Amino acid sequence: MLKLYYMPGTIALASHIALADAGANYEIEKVDFAVSQQRSPEYLRLNPKGRVPALETPHGTLTETPAILAYIAQTHPLAALAPVNNPFKFARCQAFNSYFCSTVHVAHAHRMRGYRWVDEPEAIAAMQRKVPKSVFDSFVVIEEALAEGPWLLGEEYSICDPYLFTLSGWLEADGVDPCRLPRVLDHHLRMRERACVRRALTEQGF
Amino acid sequence: MLKLYYMPGTIALASHIALADAGANYEIEKVDFAVSQQRSPEYLRLNPKGRVPALETPHGTLTETPAILAYIAQTHPLAALAPVNNPFKFARCQAFNSYFCSTVHVAHAHRMRGYRWVDEPEAIAAMQRKVPKSVFDSFVVIEEALAEGPWLLGEEYSICDPYLFTLSGWLEADGVDPCRLPRVLDHHLRMRERACVRRALTEQGF
Repeated sequence: MLKLYYMPGTIALASHIALADAGANYEIEKVDFAVSQQRSPEYLRLNPKGRVPALETPHGTLTETPAILAYIAQTHPLAALAPVNNPFKFARCQAFNSYFCSTVHVAHAHRMRGYRWVDEPEAIAAMQRKVPKSVFDSFVVIEEALAEGPWLLGEEYSICDPYLFTLSGWLEADGVDPCRLPRVLDHHLRMRERACVRRALTEQGF
Repeated sequence: MLKLYYMPGTIALASHIALADAGANYEIEKVDFAVSQQRSPEYLRLNPKGRVPALETPHGTLTETPAILAYIAQTHPLAALAPVNNPFKFARCQAFNSYFCSTVHVAHAHRMRGYRWVDEPEAIAAMQRKVPKSVFDSFVVIEEALAEGPWLLGEEYSICDPYLFTLSGWLEADGVDPCRLPRVLDHHLRMRERACVRRALTEQGF
């Protein structure tokens, strides 16, 4: 049994969809940010980083979305969610996921989590003003990558797709008109129709 | 033949050391940031992100340090640079590399690359003031993780170690006294003695 710790509206949705895609035996537990549960002693024992997602496995707890996604793919080979046995193709898959966590998600985080990098309210406001541009710029590479399609890696659906779906769901709130990224928007709408995506969203109370 | 595009003083050093560790057949090419070579049409054709590292392989070009490191490990199995066939251990390895690219490197980048996230000079200065704290805070998890040692994954040296070595080499410039992170400092000094690390540093002109 795998147990995913999540908060609605966070990047934990990507791992949640991947668990559904994998046909995994999983349960979920909400970490309520509204009452700072992510900073509670119980949660910090499980995940000292105080963030979500965290995935409890029979071997121990895993953190970081790219690591959790690759773990789900590698332990559910029949679902074929990543080209784990082809080093070049797997590296392309991982390159997207690394870019998502280090560049796209970070650009987004400057809207809500600016306090990580500055203390002054004026500087936090300055960060928020640039979010529409920095988030849009970070998606241009993805828009280009979807030229082949229909999925991020081409013909094959993979763990990159729920990761992209979760991030592209934040575009409007980040001040980016999704119509400026037509392939990303089309990908998002197609993802939303998938049964596993609907299942994860329902399980999270959407 | 693999070809690594690098600039001295950047995160490309991690991939360079891993190539040496792997016993790979590789060559290197400097991308001179002093003359903005990373924005040249030739380089952007190779890597539209305009950053380093990029690794040319027989199948195409790879970007993003965690992806390049795992590719090097997976294609050089005799060097045993990552537990690629144990999904849980490999996920722990990837979790460190994801954390490095999304949290540690990002904290550091607010000193030199603040223009990515704000436009106003005062806000860039505010970011720079917080770098010593945010970089130090990001290393606390790593200091804890090294309690077992001697390497980041425990007994086994892995691709996480040259990544950590490269990042910990920036601590002083980021305003963090490495003595506050004694295990990280000890790791850095032990890494510096390794022949492959010395080889990579020499090849980069240090």
